[in-house]
Amino acid sequence: MKNGQRYEPLTVPRRMILGPGPSSASPRVLRAMSLPIIGYLDPAFFDLIDELTGMLGEVFKTEQRAFSVAGAGSAGMEAGLVSLAQPGDTVIICSYGHFCERQIIMGERLGLNVVPLRTEWGRSMDPGVLIDALKQHPETQLVVAIHAETSAGTIHPIAEFARIAHKAGAMFMTDVVTSLAGCELEFDEWELDFAYSGSQKCLAAPPGISPVAMSERALDYIRNRSKPPTSWYLDLSLIADYWGKDHVAHHTAPVSMIYGLREAVGMALNEGLETRWKRHEANASALRAGLEALNLELPISKGDRLDQLTIVKLPKGVDDVKLRAQLLDEYSIEVGRGLGKFAGEVIRIGLMGESCVPANVFALLNALEKTLPEHGFEVGSGAAAAAASAQLVKNPSPLFTG
Amino acid sequence: MKNGQRYEPLTVPRRMILGPGPSSASPRVLRAMSLPIIGYLDPAFFDLIDELTGMLGEVFKTEQRAFSVAGAGSAGMEAGLVSLAQPGDTVIICSYGHFCERQIIMGERLGLNVVPLRTEWGRSMDPGVLIDALKQHPETQLVVAIHAETSAGTIHPIAEFARIAHKAGAMFMTDVVTSLAGCELEFDEWELDFAYSGSQKCLAAPPGISPVAMSERALDYIRNRSKPPTSWYLDLSLIADYWGKDHVAHHTAPVSMIYGLREAVGMALNEGLETRWKRHEANASALRAGLEALNLELPISKGDRLDQLTIVKLPKGVDDVKLRAQLLDEYSIEVGRGLGKFAGEVIRIGLMGESCVPANVFALLNALEKTLPEHGFEVGSGAAAAAASAQLVKNPSPLFTG
Repeated sequence: MKNGQRYEPLTVPRRMILGPGPSSASPRVLRAMSLPIIGYLDPAFFDLIDELTGMLGEVFKTEQRAFSVAGAGSAGMEAGLVSLAQPGDTVIICSYGHFCERQIIMGERLGLNVVPLRTEWGRSMDPGVLIDALKQHPETQLVVAIHAETSAGTIHPIAEFARIAHKAGAMFMTDVVTSLAGCELEFDEWELDFAYSGSQKCLAAPPGISPVAMSERALDYIRNRSKPPTSWYLDLSLIADYWGKDHVAHHTAPVSMIYGLREAVGMALNEGLETRWKRHEANASALRAGLEALNLELPISKGDRLDQLTIVKLPKGVDDVKLRAQLLDEYSIEVGRGLGKFAGEVIRIGLMGESCVPANVFALLNALEKTLPEHGFEVGSGAAAAAASAQLVKNPSPLFTG
Repeated sequence: MKNGQRYEPLTVPRRMILGPGPSSASPRVLRAMSLPIIGYLDPAFFDLIDELTGMLGEVFKTEQRAFSVAGAGSAGMEAGLVSLAQPGDTVIICSYGHFCERQIIMGERLGLNVVPLRTEWGRSMDPGVLIDALKQHPETQLVVAIHAETSAGTIHPIAEFARIAHKAGAMFMTDVVTSLAGCELEFDEWELDFAYSGSQKCLAAPPGISPVAMSERALDYIRNRSKPPTSWYLDLSLIADYWGKDHVAHHTAPVSMIYGLREAVGMALNEGLETRWKRHEANASALRAGLEALNLELPISKGDRLDQLTIVKLPKGVDDVKLRAQLLDEYSIEVGRGLGKFAGEVIRIGLMGESCVPANVFALLNALEKTLPEHGFEVGSGAAAAAASAQLVKNPSPLFTG
């Protein structure tokens, strides 16, 4: 202790988090985070993870493996890449955003023969591009593509990508960090081999644990590959064995994060997945109506855009950093910055999970209406709230329960 | 939701956790776990991790780098191995327990040229063994050794190991999962290059985050190695950059776990590290006095044993699994099983952090006094509690504050 300083209990500011994630966690989830610790080999804890395994299966819509990786969504990403291909294997990574580029960096570090398949940011990738690439690389072991790219605000037809990959004899891995519990996802029906997500987006749990689903085929592959994955911590077969019926000890499980994830998944299932998807759609529609009433440009077209995350083009002359700082300082509202090709040109507004309610839509639109003119962009008075309200009258948001 | 099932709020049993970890978290820490989420790029969150960086430096006793890896202690372990050596490099791994063997498995998976240096379980390793190994392997890049081996209940002279490694031109990495905040550790004075710990032992936070310290020399090595670490998630230089003054974005930080870690470290510093070490010593002494009064054998000798974790030899005929199950079912007390060479032959009793108080010593001794005769091992009535009490009168435990 320096100079006799005493560390008082931590306090944190109250924020309205409307960025790309983490998003707010539900009070019920936060309460679960403060439950007492029990051992990760305690039979009572095994009961909990057995229950959670079934619940995760419902959220991913799979009867195959569902469990969680003890780390951020990026740990789920790396677990898939290190487990589902060996150094030297050809892996096609579709790239239309910042997080696709992260997959490429990871794959290259792991010594995979990465074939990047780069298409335009802000548009859904045409499946024909993948068909062509697989013709050129018939030796491909694994195809990787992101379902909902938060850096570009786009959704991609992963069910079709998976069919194309399988037809060419490759496995298919996908990132559902932003899509899980926020829009349709059918792990078994779409024949996905591995999907990793995050806890901190549409599930409304704290960040730091990555729920995943894996096909039996993928698990067989890992168990039978000629050399085990270079990572012990992120070896999906070892993690699956801890979550499986024998509960084979691996690393110490993140007990509190698993409490929080269980609670969040329980709330999502109580609400009903279809209702939750509808809630994301309705609030995003209201937000878009309001933003358009402010004369802001939404550059992602209707068929390609996400409901969870809306990309807004910054009007000429509006400084990204200053605008976001003002929203944070004066309204305690966080919105996201642009990344990669969109850096400095857009802001990203997330409406996910706990944050995805009409109150937040109105609060943000009001803050923008007050703030933007101070940055030299004129907007009509009250128009945004009126437009959002009209849209919500026409297409109401389900009440957030759970 | 299956059959209209509604998921009610999670509850968990109340346990007295006296195993090798996780150990109980303090109520103040659990409260911090339930604070609202803020963004991992929020200036308020940067203030928090800047404060925590300084606090971790105090706990590790370093003016160099202190931060945390977003995963279990095993993630800290793998982060060190993947960051501080390249495939093909010679790495000497001292092995005198189960977790040393885990390091060997990880190192081999990573393609390091691992030289295992195996010595007897249950004894501190003689530094002469390391001197000899380094003579045989002058090309050694890294020496790895565990400070407090919980599987064998032993402490090892890592300051001396570090001196020997440096003299031979190698870096030195160590596991302080069980030692940090439980017994003396001097990162800078002992010239360690990398030390990883866990949150869930003597720090009394939930498991799932690995506090680490790293020398500037180690960071320079990572920044200048010919190829980057094969892991992006566990690349210590990228993690250090997020925790450093520029807060370069890496993966999403585990916000709640960082809240809990901050609170736990604050409590340890409020208590005072020396007082906390003394608390571990005094309660372990009382426990040992009580166990000896029960005629139980403590196989680790005085100079080699830990205070945080006591190895108890099971009397002939006492079944490990049945005894532990009875303690859990009838007393809600968790003790640990034997691992590796000690499997089925010992139980392991942890007194760490929040769990390390006289009340728990007495509760466990009483449970053993009642239980052991039912397993065919006769013990004297009340002798254990009397012996522990006498020991605590002679050598009192500091009151646990913080």
